[in-house]
Amino acid sequence: MPTTSPAAPAPVLVLVPGATGAPADGGAPFHLADATVPQLSVTDLVATRGDGIFETIGAFDGVPVNVGPHLARLARSAGLIELPEPDQAVLAEAVDAAIAAHQPVAELSVRVMLTRGIEGAGTPTCWIHARVSDDWTPYRAGMRVAVLDRGLATTVTGTSPWLLSGAKTLSYAVNMAAVREAKRRGAADVLFLSSDGFVLEGPTSTLLVRRGEEFLTTPVSAGVLPGTSVKSLFTWLQQDGVAVRDELMTPADVAGSDGAWLLSSTRLAAPITHLDDAELPVDHELTARFQTVLKGQA
Amino acid sequence: MPTTSPAAPAPVLVLVPGATGAPADGGAPFHLADATVPQLSVTDLVATRGDGIFETIGAFDGVPVNVGPHLARLARSAGLIELPEPDQAVLAEAVDAAIAAHQPVAELSVRVMLTRGIEGAGTPTCWIHARVSDDWTPYRAGMRVAVLDRGLATTVTGTSPWLLSGAKTLSYAVNMAAVREAKRRGAADVLFLSSDGFVLEGPTSTLLVRRGEEFLTTPVSAGVLPGTSVKSLFTWLQQDGVAVRDELMTPADVAGSDGAWLLSSTRLAAPITHLDDAELPVDHELTARFQTVLKGQA
Repeated sequence: MPTTSPAAPAPVLVLVPGATGAPADGGAPFHLADATVPQLSVTDLVATRGDGIFETIGAFDGVPVNVGPHLARLARSAGLIELPEPDQAVLAEAVDAAIAAHQPVAELSVRVMLTRGIEGAGTPTCWIHARVSDDWTPYRAGMRVAVLDRGLATTVTGTSPWLLSGAKTLSYAVNMAAVREAKRRGAADVLFLSSDGFVLEGPTSTLLVRRGEEFLTTPVSAGVLPGTSVKSLFTWLQQDGVAVRDELMTPADVAGSDGAWLLSSTRLAAPITHLDDAELPVDHELTARFQTVLKGQA
Repeated sequence: MPTTSPAAPAPVLVLVPGATGAPADGGAPFHLADATVPQLSVTDLVATRGDGIFETIGAFDGVPVNVGPHLARLARSAGLIELPEPDQAVLAEAVDAAIAAHQPVAELSVRVMLTRGIEGAGTPTCWIHARVSDDWTPYRAGMRVAVLDRGLATTVTGTSPWLLSGAKTLSYAVNMAAVREAKRRGAADVLFLSSDGFVLEGPTSTLLVRRGEEFLTTPVSAGVLPGTSVKSLFTWLQQDGVAVRDELMTPADVAGSDGAWLLSSTRLAAPITHLDDAELPVDHELTARFQTVLKGQA
């Protein structure tokens, strides 16, 4: 008798014509759409220029985490890239609608995408796509990380805002190329390095470092995204009186630390077992507590 | 009596499922499609990561220019970004088909787009989009150009290939942000500067500089695209015994030169009247001859 594996729950697509103002046709600000058919124009500026921004929100047992901070960061990215300001109330409702329309699963990845829209139209395109998260179990157990140059100095946010450091744009080809390079080196992920020698962030994650009883991350002023997950962990740690702060660190600082993690909203806390060839201590118990906090279940 | 303006000729869309190998469904390698309806999935990696490459080919009076060099450069970009190698013969036929299907016009802009495809599918998405070129007459008469830092050193191609310097990717949000910054400064376009102080290229163009009877451009090794237009002009100049070469130049070198242009396949040769505040000499007669060469009509 042939075995059949159950079909994966179908992704959910919500189109949001009201993301930055009332839809021109007077219709609803968002509506469910068929995720299995093409929905984007080939002249949408995201397809011709990678000109857009995004957020990825994790939802655990049907409850999305940090929706407010994610949408606030989307608004921050919109400002950096000069897109109209997104209507965070509409987007929050649309995120809820996407999750409600999805078959219940343990871990859902909900992407909020905002592009500059079809060439010449002058109206952003926005959609929300919810799908079962990838299985991040191996990452949460620990992973090797390669240090790769991002080529830019930590000073560029101040001097050259058009380089969009710190904006979460849809121009992520370099981030994807860096992950491919890491895999070639036998690592699972990347820690970017500035041209002036400081560690920054991962291609899709934020750095957290433990030094004794203190927890550190990269300052946003160095050109990294303000991490929503690191903010959650900092708040949780501070409740217990643990010291947290922002500091520029070198690869040697991280390699010689008492533990380091790459944080993201869907992978949660992935401990770094090796930074290039340097082995780091891994605290699996603390990491497990981090996962609970980041799932919003602490 | 109300005046009516004639409708602009409709853009033409050609989908190319056979761009990197025979289509899985055994169908034709390319076919015309409706450019007025959505044709892209929201999970195409170009829409979620800006993960793809492109070329823009100019066609003048129905004749495309430099199709071979453009498709060779597309193949070069595919190699840099680790996409399957495009079938240049299929793409050349598809470009011809797009032009043939378009209403005859003086200047056509033909984009060839190749993305990493729908997430998880492992097959690139490819399309060709032909439309009437924007009116570049003002640029060809001369334009102000702002020098803007690109943040990267001229050495990164060698040291950090994952930064994709020299690949013509669809992650162009920074290029678009730089042009917006230039416009805020009262300029029409940008000349990028490396972090080690050398001029590079425009966001969508190549630099050409005249010094006495010699013509210069930026070396490809500095992390710029190998320009198809500068190659055409160099070939034409060399036929007359004029010296041409690649050289790393500073903004002061360009400001003190005997003329400079930003070259592209659709805008052709746009002379720089001012580089930031420095005024440059403009040779309109030579510029007009450049346009003829770049239109393939010399």
